[in-house]
Amino acid sequence: MMKKKLTVVKVGGKIVEEESTLNQLLNDFSSIEGFKVLVHGGGRSATRIATLLGIESKMINGRRITDAETLKVVTMVYGGLVNKNIVAGLQAKGVNALGLTGVDMNIIRSVKRPVKEVDYGFVGDVEKVNSEILADLIEKGIVPVLAPLTHDGQGNMLNTNADTIAAETAKALSEYFDVTLVYCFEKKGVLRDENDDNSVIPFISHSEFEAYVADGTIQGGMIPKLENSFEAINAGVSQVVITLATAINADSGTRIIK
Amino acid sequence: MMKKKLTVVKVGGKIVEEESTLNQLLNDFSSIEGFKVLVHGGGRSATRIATLLGIESKMINGRRITDAETLKVVTMVYGGLVNKNIVAGLQAKGVNALGLTGVDMNIIRSVKRPVKEVDYGFVGDVEKVNSEILADLIEKGIVPVLAPLTHDGQGNMLNTNADTIAAETAKALSEYFDVTLVYCFEKKGVLRDENDDNSVIPFISHSEFEAYVADGTIQGGMIPKLENSFEAINAGVSQVVITLATAINADSGTRIIK
Repeated sequence: MMKKKLTVVKVGGKIVEEESTLNQLLNDFSSIEGFKVLVHGGGRSATRIATLLGIESKMINGRRITDAETLKVVTMVYGGLVNKNIVAGLQAKGVNALGLTGVDMNIIRSVKRPVKEVDYGFVGDVEKVNSEILADLIEKGIVPVLAPLTHDGQGNMLNTNADTIAAETAKALSEYFDVTLVYCFEKKGVLRDENDDNSVIPFISHSEFEAYVADGTIQGGMIPKLENSFEAINAGVSQVVITLATAINADSGTRIIK
Repeated sequence: MMKKKLTVVKVGGKIVEEESTLNQLLNDFSSIEGFKVLVHGGGRSATRIATLLGIESKMINGRRITDAETLKVVTMVYGGLVNKNIVAGLQAKGVNALGLTGVDMNIIRSVKRPVKEVDYGFVGDVEKVNSEILADLIEKGIVPVLAPLTHDGQGNMLNTNADTIAAETAKALSEYFDVTLVYCFEKKGVLRDENDDNSVIPFISHSEFEAYVADGTIQGGMIPKLENSFEAINAGVSQVVITLATAINADSGTRIIK
């Protein structure tokens, strides 16, 4: 049987935390045809609220060190403030959104990251996505909106990378749907020259990726994003696109090929 | 066809905001047989976080005046912090909980309370509970955990009384289930003498309620709670019980009769 199309869109905190960019995103996302899922970040709001609460934000390698107090902040901000604001905005546009974290219906179980050189605290590495109930709701017309939080099954929420949640959810849902995973960010795609916004690499294979990393063309946060992308492609996701947040529906950006 | 039993439990903020009472509640709630729904408050945490953020909490007639900044706080605290903490605790006990606010799947639509003597701000009066999708999930073994937030369909979250949410949800679900609504609070039930914890009125009819209000036996916050209860009983809910939070499963408390 031909699987129906599903688009999993991941957007960073910056886009969903500002009124004007959020509004455009909600319009673009609403106009995506077929089934869809939105995964969002919220780091800037978390940092802002943490600061107001007198909690220092510590980052290592771009990841937030999540102590018990910080976990409360991200649970509030990602699961409450940012998530419900997006869901309310989508509902106003006639999209029947459902805000979720990984603990809800046990959809994303994770394990607390083991302490090695760095103790990341209450940070989770995804173990399992229970996609059956999610697929069932999607088939009914519900649009899941996922906050970057999971749980360990022992009563603890865990702060979890939104890119990873998007990739793992896309992989798990590819059992039921023909899935396209779209990573939105502030660039037009993966760039050959970081100073030239128009140097987008339109297609990238794994061997090309390795060569670009070796020669320094691709670096920093783009490396894990692309690693997630290749993993997704190899695990049944049909297509991965890395593109500008304002170009979800356009035929631009970088496409990951097997 | 005989409807299956469903219990809607409403618990106040105090119970869910302290580790020890929350734990007992989660144990008691987990052990309720049959289908169930939990509705929670969270006012103390909201006041605490608001204070830390430098936002003054204004209450009139026990209701929070919800300006734009306060709305953000209650959205974070009710929809994020308190809700996900409960859901994580239930998941750890094997209950497949799903944290929801009224905006999620458009389950509770409300209207912003009109300004009369008091401008309550972003406070919602429930207009409609969309119980079909909720009933469907409950039948699948999902246990909804509702935060006291609804939405207006125009993109705004609205702060909404948890007692009302419990009553309206119980009423709407009585189309599908044989519903018992349990209001938990810090007393053993409706008391004949507020200084005597053992003066519980075991059954109360509407005419008795009116007489008790007239002679001052029943006053304050108990009046709207009982009004909600009678409304629920008259709209198809089988049973309403007002009882101690530690006695959800006991055969005690005050029972509302038609």
